[in-house]
Amino acid sequence: MKKCIVIPDSYKGTLSAIEVCKIMKESILKYYPDCKVIELPIADGGEGTVDSYCHIFDADRILVEAEGPYGEKIPVAYARTGDCAVIETASAAGLPMAEKLNRLDPCNATTYGLGTIMNHAIKNGCKKLIIGLGGSCTNDGGMGMAAALGCRFYNKSGEEFVPTACEFSQISRMDLSKARKKVKGIEVIGMCDIDNPMYGENGAAYVFAPQKGADEAMVKRLDAELKALSEILYNTTGTDVSSLKGGGAAGGLGAGLAALTNATLQSGIQTLLDLAGFDEMVKDSDLIFTGEGKIDAQSLRGKVVIGVAGRAKLKKIPVIAVVGAVGEDVQDAYDLGISAIFSINQQPVSFEQSRYHSHENLAKTMDNIIRFYKSIYKE
Amino acid sequence: MKKCIVIPDSYKGTLSAIEVCKIMKESILKYYPDCKVIELPIADGGEGTVDSYCHIFDADRILVEAEGPYGEKIPVAYARTGDCAVIETASAAGLPMAEKLNRLDPCNATTYGLGTIMNHAIKNGCKKLIIGLGGSCTNDGGMGMAAALGCRFYNKSGEEFVPTACEFSQISRMDLSKARKKVKGIEVIGMCDIDNPMYGENGAAYVFAPQKGADEAMVKRLDAELKALSEILYNTTGTDVSSLKGGGAAGGLGAGLAALTNATLQSGIQTLLDLAGFDEMVKDSDLIFTGEGKIDAQSLRGKVVIGVAGRAKLKKIPVIAVVGAVGEDVQDAYDLGISAIFSINQQPVSFEQSRYHSHENLAKTMDNIIRFYKSIYKE
Repeated sequence: MKKCIVIPDSYKGTLSAIEVCKIMKESILKYYPDCKVIELPIADGGEGTVDSYCHIFDADRILVEAEGPYGEKIPVAYARTGDCAVIETASAAGLPMAEKLNRLDPCNATTYGLGTIMNHAIKNGCKKLIIGLGGSCTNDGGMGMAAALGCRFYNKSGEEFVPTACEFSQISRMDLSKARKKVKGIEVIGMCDIDNPMYGENGAAYVFAPQKGADEAMVKRLDAELKALSEILYNTTGTDVSSLKGGGAAGGLGAGLAALTNATLQSGIQTLLDLAGFDEMVKDSDLIFTGEGKIDAQSLRGKVVIGVAGRAKLKKIPVIAVVGAVGEDVQDAYDLGISAIFSINQQPVSFEQSRYHSHENLAKTMDNIIRFYKSIYKE
Repeated sequence: MKKCIVIPDSYKGTLSAIEVCKIMKESILKYYPDCKVIELPIADGGEGTVDSYCHIFDADRILVEAEGPYGEKIPVAYARTGDCAVIETASAAGLPMAEKLNRLDPCNATTYGLGTIMNHAIKNGCKKLIIGLGGSCTNDGGMGMAAALGCRFYNKSGEEFVPTACEFSQISRMDLSKARKKVKGIEVIGMCDIDNPMYGENGAAYVFAPQKGADEAMVKRLDAELKALSEILYNTTGTDVSSLKGGGAAGGLGAGLAALTNATLQSGIQTLLDLAGFDEMVKDSDLIFTGEGKIDAQSLRGKVVIGVAGRAKLKKIPVIAVVGAVGEDVQDAYDLGISAIFSINQQPVSFEQSRYHSHENLAKTMDNIIRFYKSIYKE
């Protein structure tokens, strides 16, 4: 084995993608000390995206004071290489942050902090902003961010206000001039792996707001407010984001970014693979290792493992998925480019027990995969 | 892949060795339809030995009426090819049988039925008796068997009796003439994978009688009776079985067989591998698959998986162990010839849940191992 790529997602709740990379790499080097092992820990837009990007691209980690989901000042970080910044919505408006505050309140949670980070990056000379949209606690259509960028909102009485996610119908007029000036010449990419539109039965409120703390009545209200926002955005910008695919990402932030910054919404994993130059890198590899906490029908829809497999398949490089659990209906994975799937469970014990052994279980599984490879592969 | 050997033990409590073979074979043929897959389901002396032997050697299955552990008439079977019989002690004096009768009573349980089967095989022309010693509920030093073969026991008053496991100290004299005549010219091999002697702190009573139902006082008594038996056997036959390795197998049956029939006690797996011509068969194989319910420090001591690995190592054929669970301390397995170990657990769930999915879990694991092989092996 001369060259190998390890490109896992995190094992949610047990191992970060960076930890998984480290374990995989160690196993390979144990038997093939001269093998070139390229580590690409992946986080495709949610928590960990900045860390992954810093690890892969040796990017600078820029610390900023921004606002949390309820306006509180918090330290956050974004990644920067050259004039490109990678920003994580979850770092300023993450669901885990709201959970820690014991306040799941999508009516009042704001993406304002994200705008603060964008301001910093733009001031810092960045011309390309890649924004991960995963894992937010908000439903504000990105209007918090818009306010931070300088967008001004007025009600029917002509008074300026910053609308919450429950107040879009009170917006009578928006002034985008300052914000527009700021993002002029800035390329914005939103990384998201969902197709949901801004509102409606498949929209942000109906599909995602319940896990952010909205009850049935609140879901209805949030959905109606997003619909109202979409009309205001159209009236103000001429851009119709009402049926934009991914517009519903991060509580409608996808739509807000598109209307305000002409952001392109695209797959997180595809974006990262392109940035990393994966297609070129993979050419002379012997093997690719990927993995995630659980592979199932859901992870076959454009997520990390399958994203990697699809690219590798074109180059005919074997892709081995090493996972915490193999769900039902993974048969398609093979057609999509996965060569084989191995689960890390060494013993028949529950997740409550095994979660504390994820590190050693992954190490053992990798060890045996490499042993197997070595026993049968003829150089 | 042109030739493959599948040679598993059973997965105790879930899959028989024959079922495991079938699943493994199907997985291989799915990707290599022209591969020659040799099935060697192994049971190395305990329950299932006769079935395995019949499967491997296409042996005749001979039905006999014999005695169960408490003298009750039961149908049993032994295997026969040519003049060789394979007999399972557990079929006439098995621990599961005693458990089903709800009578764990090592003082009274007898190997008489084993002697009945041996009688049948000898009358049937068999010149070689291979007897599996695993899984008995007895502690009778094989004297039940001896009685069935025609051995006669007398007490101090000169009265004939058949001693139980608690009555050896009452034996004053044994008459072996009839039994000796019967086994003349018969080669007897006892298959056992333990080294325990007939009596003493590592002997049959102290180590195995507790699981057969003996309390502390009974263990002491059974041990003393076996010691007395060893003296009587020495006085009668001139053979000292007191420190014979494996003499403590099947409640001292190992020692009884050795004294009475000059039986050789040897490793079950090694015996079967020799009978099957494993060394010759393995030469041009691409891969060997073995497996068992759980691989751990105990299974590294002369059992199926390691027995297979040791032989294969000499021929430099990769051995893949596919198991229900990987225990601690299996590092030595690799030195002993195992190339890689894969667990069949697809999900982190307890054995109570997973045991009902052993079939599909093994099939999925094998499927991925063969997929992996196919993706990397260059013919």
